Amino acid sequence: MDERRLKHWGWGYEDQAPSEAELREAAVGIRERFGFGGGPEEPVPLEEVELRASRLKVPSAFGDLFSDDRYERVAHALGKAYRDVVRGFRGEFENPPDLVAFPKDESEIEVVLEWAEAEGAAVIPFGGGTSVVGGVEARLGDRPVVSLDLRQLDRVLEVDGESLAARIQAGATGPGLEDQLREHGLTLRHFPQSFEYSTLGGWVATRAGGHFATLYTHIDDLVESVRAISPRGTWQSRRLPGSGAGPSPDRALIGSEGILGVIAEAWVRVRPRPEFKSSCGVEFEDFPAAAVAVREIAQSGLNPANCRLLDAMEAGIMGAGSGEKSLLVLGFESPHLPVDESMRLALDIAQSHGGVPTSPPPGRSIPRAAKRGSVGSASRQGRDDGGSAVESWRGAFLLAPYLRDTFVACGVLSETFETAITWDRFEEFHADVMAAVRVKVAAVCGTPADGDGAPRVSCRLTHVYPDGPAPYFTVLAPAIRGGEVEQWDEIKAAAAEAVIEGGGTITHHHAVGRDHRPWYDRQRPAPFAAALRAAKAELDPGAILNPGVLIDP
Amino acid sequence: MDERRLKHWGWGYEDQAPSEAELREAAVGIRERFGFGGGPEEPVPLEEVELRASRLKVPSAFGDLFSDDRYERVAHALGKAYRDVVRGFRGEFENPPDLVAFPKDESEIEVVLEWAEAEGAAVIPFGGGTSVVGGVEARLGDRPVVSLDLRQLDRVLEVDGESLAARIQAGATGPGLEDQLREHGLTLRHFPQSFEYSTLGGWVATRAGGHFATLYTHIDDLVESVRAISPRGTWQSRRLPGSGAGPSPDRALIGSEGILGVIAEAWVRVRPRPEFKSSCGVEFEDFPAAAVAVREIAQSGLNPANCRLLDAMEAGIMGAGSGEKSLLVLGFESPHLPVDESMRLALDIAQSHGGVPTSPPPGRSIPRAAKRGSVGSASRQGRDDGGSAVESWRGAFLLAPYLRDTFVACGVLSETFETAITWDRFEEFHADVMAAVRVKVAAVCGTPADGDGAPRVSCRLTHVYPDGPAPYFTVLAPAIRGGEVEQWDEIKAAAAEAVIEGGGTITHHHAVGRDHRPWYDRQRPAPFAAALRAAKAELDPGAILNPGVLIDP
Repeated sequence: MDERRLKHWGWGYEDQAPSEAELREAAVGIRERFGFGGGPEEPVPLEEVELRASRLKVPSAFGDLFSDDRYERVAHALGKAYRDVVRGFRGEFENPPDLVAFPKDESEIEVVLEWAEAEGAAVIPFGGGTSVVGGVEARLGDRPVVSLDLRQLDRVLEVDGESLAARIQAGATGPGLEDQLREHGLTLRHFPQSFEYSTLGGWVATRAGGHFATLYTHIDDLVESVRAISPRGTWQSRRLPGSGAGPSPDRALIGSEGILGVIAEAWVRVRPRPEFKSSCGVEFEDFPAAAVAVREIAQSGLNPANCRLLDAMEAGIMGAGSGEKSLLVLGFESPHLPVDESMRLALDIAQSHGGVPTSPPPGRSIPRAAKRGSVGSASRQGRDDGGSAVESWRGAFLLAPYLRDTFVACGVLSETFETAITWDRFEEFHADVMAAVRVKVAAVCGTPADGDGAPRVSCRLTHVYPDGPAPYFTVLAPAIRGGEVEQWDEIKAAAAEAVIEGGGTITHHHAVGRDHRPWYDRQRPAPFAAALRAAKAELDPGAILNPGVLIDP
Repeated sequence: MDERRLKHWGWGYEDQAPSEAELREAAVGIRERFGFGGGPEEPVPLEEVELRASRLKVPSAFGDLFSDDRYERVAHALGKAYRDVVRGFRGEFENPPDLVAFPKDESEIEVVLEWAEAEGAAVIPFGGGTSVVGGVEARLGDRPVVSLDLRQLDRVLEVDGESLAARIQAGATGPGLEDQLREHGLTLRHFPQSFEYSTLGGWVATRAGGHFATLYTHIDDLVESVRAISPRGTWQSRRLPGSGAGPSPDRALIGSEGILGVIAEAWVRVRPRPEFKSSCGVEFEDFPAAAVAVREIAQSGLNPANCRLLDAMEAGIMGAGSGEKSLLVLGFESPHLPVDESMRLALDIAQSHGGVPTSPPPGRSIPRAAKRGSVGSASRQGRDDGGSAVESWRGAFLLAPYLRDTFVACGVLSETFETAITWDRFEEFHADVMAAVRVKVAAVCGTPADGDGAPRVSCRLTHVYPDGPAPYFTVLAPAIRGGEVEQWDEIKAAAAEAVIEGGGTITHHHAVGRDHRPWYDRQRPAPFAAALRAAKAELDPGAILNPGVLIDP
């Protein structure tokens, strides 16, 4: 339906794929840099993918609402986790939806739900398809599946400049809604890593984390009201700045990952574009000392927009320094008020813990081949800011998923996991998780745990709260070609075990989906799970909505 | 169980009741001030209350866990709404619990739930009993009822000074938990008007609003994890600074008003005591202009701790000025950072909308008779701050419930209602609600709508958000002696109708209980109500927990 088509297996558009020559150059660079990885492989082209025949016939009564187009079925079969990208690269689409539906309005969402329920089919709401937790992949055996793609519900429907709120349809992507808000001088400023492709509805369904490191960390806090279509009626909350009337209906939908209803639109809190900005890098010899500085900043009431702490290895990988020092990226922004004093106070805290400001922070270095995506994406986002340390960091941040496609082609295992924990447990938790993962990665990959050619396991703090940080771990290791999924699943299990045993959450902002289920099931309170199952059974008696996500029927 | 006993019908302790002479003096002052009210009446003494015999026999197996003591049954029969205080004053306790249980630990809570389920009795969790929405009054006809008083679970069990969090039992009162936190140099700084008597568990169950006018307005934001006892198991969430794993289990319990489980304890976010404070009053000729200034401050990112706007009538009633100007009470506080610059910027905004700073703001004037309660309460709270405008305002604020007992004795109808609305609708909403209530009050009371002797209907903004304020309305009018409940119920219905029709919430921080049900039922999304009913049926199949609150079975 777009002129440009998204890749059927990886990140971004088809025309953003690196050329063969670029890939070969990248493979050499990766090998030099990391001591592992190999010559580039080619992905299985769409036309060679063996695709199970659709078990559902496109119903004739609804025009072009449903499609059984081969590309669409493939493109809706998987999310964007490493294990998804690898399988897509190898042409392994085990669970393609039988049909893809493209509703143009709410009544067509209702049609899809009614039709699917009558057919006994499952329905998987689909935003940008950027789930990294198996949220959009049907693993339902013989049960037929409809992927419900909301891309045509992409409008900002109303803007309330007085209350600073906007009513936005679920299928609007980050750049799409920012473009429309910009006409009003407003912005949502919610920038998850998937920003270019993911959608408002997806953010709400998965409790996405945005770019604010403090205060407004999750989309949760930006939601004023939600409208969702359940099989048993429309769930519409009132637009309210705050309420105390019973448990929040919005919070029940936020994070429900499509199992209670299809989010159709939401009123969200927007803001004027920032006029005042300040950003600075601060280097630390020691990650634990840096974490104490971050804790103090998080508890200061200064509420920086950015307060991301990269450990030395992560800083090195991001090209931000020698790889021997931890790097704190601090940023303040405001539409109305100068922020220099806030920055000065935050730097005072950082320096009192041994931090050395480095302004502007070291530049980034990303393999050239991976950068191809950035030109298109940057212009698509059309941001008015640029050049600052925060922007440099954000550029690298948004490029990471493109880079991963290159890693997949070049035999590098590249994946992340993230969590949150209170400060009192952080240091031990961090050490335990790092140790568990490093040991497991080395064992699985058959490499030494240290030195050249060893896997890289690094950590950054992406969001920080007065009571604790959200640590985000990155693993880079030599892939076992053809065995990447098993390889990662084994590492992931060790990581998740360490996180859950250590008292963390299985996810701070990547959602639960299907991949996190075994650990989520241990984390959540049993009576809550029972309540959620009962609620779902009431609203979705046919169990059509995204079955297997969050709970079993 | 206390040495001092709480009044069986009104606010505070028995020894805080004004003397006959003080009441007569107050009656004269009230009459002079408002042009209505009459000579004081005497409450029906406890020994003259006609009390239905208990329909449950104290079980012999559980020591002193259950009581059928007359005082306890009366003292647990009603909340503290005007309609409750009036009924208590007149000795009308229609729905006393048959037994009151005083568990000393969780296992005794479980005993009470099991025993009640076996007996077919309902259980009403009881914290401070300060509900103003019928949250603790059983209206269950022939069904026997146990009031479950958590006062013995009153300890701060753990303090984590690194993460700034504390594990506190549900029955701890405001002063009780602050006293225990003070030993660690910490404070929760959650000061609802009921602070002296209400409890952490009650706050969590009802989404109580605290003293922060921005950011941390509700207890919701201060909760790190919750532990509750449901009839089908213990609901314990993990201590996490943030999470994205499914819909928040905590948010499902917060505001559940005792229908899903008995909140036993919670980890809450605490903070060092504020070292830097600044407060200032600002007068405005015009309430709408003042509201625009408040909106701009709420959208500035300054996040004042206090930002309460009193309309001219409310300022006059509070003794804060001539009654001809609106008064904005601004306050900033921080444990770490100077706040003078924030105050300067906020005052700049206020002045740009015609505000005139008045520092220190005008003092309060509260009838002396009502002040008796203040001495005991202030020492109980043991605050380290005092003297500032914010403290003066807060003193008057905490005295209001004592004053209401005097109003009841002197034939003055005195009640409040509150809501929240977005800024775009605020001005019209405010005008409509004020008009509807003034017309109804005058009609019901048989008074002129204006002039001396006319009822007073006033408004303040208690909490403000970037997207809208929480308006709080006060009604003072001549009571129809013996007919106060019907009189208020008629006014309340008109107010609630205007609030719900205008798009507001039936409550921003007073909860739903039984009194708000007709309007809450119109406000909440129907699928959410269905989900909540299903969840309750799953966790509480005997429907023993606080039946009639929030939903019907």
